[in-house]
Amino acid sequence: MKCRVCRERASIEIRRHHAVFCKEHFFDHMRRQVERTIHDYRMMAPDQRLLLGVSGGKDSLALWDILTDLGYEVDGVYIELGIGGEKGYSSSSRLLAEQFAKNRQLDLQVVDLADEYGFTIPEAAKETRRVACSVCGLSKRYVLNRIAHDRGYDVLVMGHNLDDEAATLMGNTLTWNMEYIGRQRPVLPATSRGLVRKVKPLLRIAERETAAYCVLKGIDYEVDECPLVGGNTGIRIKEWLNQMEAKRPGMKQQFLFGFLDRASDQFADAHQEEVELTDCTSCGQATTSGECAFCRLQVRMSDGG
Amino acid sequence: MKCRVCRERASIEIRRHHAVFCKEHFFDHMRRQVERTIHDYRMMAPDQRLLLGVSGGKDSLALWDILTDLGYEVDGVYIELGIGGEKGYSSSSRLLAEQFAKNRQLDLQVVDLADEYGFTIPEAAKETRRVACSVCGLSKRYVLNRIAHDRGYDVLVMGHNLDDEAATLMGNTLTWNMEYIGRQRPVLPATSRGLVRKVKPLLRIAERETAAYCVLKGIDYEVDECPLVGGNTGIRIKEWLNQMEAKRPGMKQQFLFGFLDRASDQFADAHQEEVELTDCTSCGQATTSGECAFCRLQVRMSDGG
Repeated sequence: MKCRVCRERASIEIRRHHAVFCKEHFFDHMRRQVERTIHDYRMMAPDQRLLLGVSGGKDSLALWDILTDLGYEVDGVYIELGIGGEKGYSSSSRLLAEQFAKNRQLDLQVVDLADEYGFTIPEAAKETRRVACSVCGLSKRYVLNRIAHDRGYDVLVMGHNLDDEAATLMGNTLTWNMEYIGRQRPVLPATSRGLVRKVKPLLRIAERETAAYCVLKGIDYEVDECPLVGGNTGIRIKEWLNQMEAKRPGMKQQFLFGFLDRASDQFADAHQEEVELTDCTSCGQATTSGECAFCRLQVRMSDGG
Repeated sequence: MKCRVCRERASIEIRRHHAVFCKEHFFDHMRRQVERTIHDYRMMAPDQRLLLGVSGGKDSLALWDILTDLGYEVDGVYIELGIGGEKGYSSSSRLLAEQFAKNRQLDLQVVDLADEYGFTIPEAAKETRRVACSVCGLSKRYVLNRIAHDRGYDVLVMGHNLDDEAATLMGNTLTWNMEYIGRQRPVLPATSRGLVRKVKPLLRIAERETAAYCVLKGIDYEVDECPLVGGNTGIRIKEWLNQMEAKRPGMKQQFLFGFLDRASDQFADAHQEEVELTDCTSCGQATTSGECAFCRLQVRMSDGG
C-alpha cells in the first residue's frame, strides 16, 4: 500500500475515507481533520484562553499535540481521580500526562479530587452504590468546568472522539432521552450561569486513529483501560458499532454527522424548552434545581466519611 | 415455573414483562396486548372493513387468529411473489395461508404479481440489480394498498411486530433518514390521494411470541426464512438488538416506544414539511412526483422482458 499523497510506503489505512497514508501525510490528515472541525463549528479562536481536559490517554495527548502544531496555545488540566492505588491507573496516567507536558514545556495543572473535595472515585462509587462511570463523569464535568471558570479560561476543550460520541449518541437514542440527545453537540456555548464554552475538536477522528497518531509520533500514553469500567452498556455499544463499521466503513461517521446535520436541531429545541438553569444553592454553579448533583455527592461523602 | 395468573405449569416466559404464563393465559396476554395497542392508537373499529396482509408466516397468521378471537371480521390478502419456483418458498407460504383461511372459513384473496403486473420478485431484482428486499418491499406496499383501495377496505392491517419495527427504526436512525423516521408510526392515516389507512397491531409483540403463539395454538406457518434475504443490514441489526435484549430485557420495547412516546412527533413534523404527495401520472395512486416507483419498475420489467 502506498500513501495516496506521496506514493511512499503507507503506515495506515483509513477505510471510511478510502485513504492510505504514510506517517507524515497521516499527521497532516489528522491536523486537517481537526482544523476543519474547529472551523466548521466555530469552536474557538487562537486568541482565546483554552483549557484542555487531559487524562493521559491517547485522545487528549494526541489532541494537545495537534492543537499545539496548529498554533493554538492550550493549557491542560489533569484530575487525579484516585483510581487503582499508589502505582495504579490514576498515578500512571498522571505520570504520562506530566511527562508529555514537561517534554513540550506545556502548562499542566493538576487537581486532586481527594485533596480538593475529600473523596476518590472508588470511594464515591462504593458509598453511593452507583456505577463508577456515573460518579466519575459527574465529578469530571463539574471539576473541569469549575477550574476553567475560576481560572478565567474562555473555552474548555475535550478529547471526545468519533467513537465516543457515536456510542454516547447511540446510548441516548436507545432510550430516546430527549434532554441528553439535545445536549450532544460539538459546541456547548457558555451560559450566564457560569458554564464555560465546551468544544470537541476530535469529532471526526476515530479512536484507532488517535492511537496510531500517538504510536507514530512517539507519544507515550496510558494504554490500559480504566479498571472500573467493567462491561458496561457503553462498551457493549462501542463493540457493536465496531462490528457494524467493519461491515460498512463510514457507518459510525454517518450516524454521528447525520444526526448533527439533520436531526440535532429538533432535539436542541425540545431540550431548551424543558431545561431552565438556576444557581446551585451551595456552590453557585449552574444546575437544574436546588443543590447541584456534585455538591450533593460531596455532602454525602463527607457524611459517610 | 408457574403461570403468574393460575399457578399451573407455565409454557412461556416473557422476560421483559417479568412474566410467566401457561398456554391459556399466554393466549389471553397476547389478545390483551393487541387490544391495548389497537385501543391506544385508535387503530380501527369492528364496523370498518379490514384487510390483513397475509404472508403465511407466524406474524400474520397469529394476528389473523387474535383479531378474529377479539371479534373483528378481517379478510386477508396474499401476494404471490414468485420466490423459489414451483414448490419453493412462495408456494409453500401460500399453501399455509390458504389452509389457515380454509380451516377458519376466512376470506383470503390471492394476487399473483406475475399475472397482474407481469413480473416476479426474483426477476425484478435481477433486472434492476437491486437488493431483492428493496423491490419486494416496494411491490408489496404498492399492491397491498392498491387492493385495499380498489376493493373498498377502510383499513389495511399489517403484521409487523416489535422486532420488525425496532429494527426498521434502528436502520433509519443509523442514517438519520428524517423522512423514513417520520413515516414510522403505528397508524398511517388515509390520505385524499388514495393511500388507505394502515395499522400495526402487533407493535407490542415480539417475534418469539408470535412463533410461540402459533406453535401452542397448532397453527402451521412458514418457518423458513425467505431465501432472498441473505445477510442484509436489517438482519444484522436484528441480531444486535437481540444481543442487547438478552443483556437488558425490555430494551427493544423501550427503544421503540420511547421513540413513539417522546420523539416521533418531531420527526413527523419534519416529514410533513418535506413531503407533498401528488397522483402518479400512470396509475393515479399517491406518489411524491411524476410516475410512482412501482409503475417505473413495471415499465422497466415489460421493456426488459
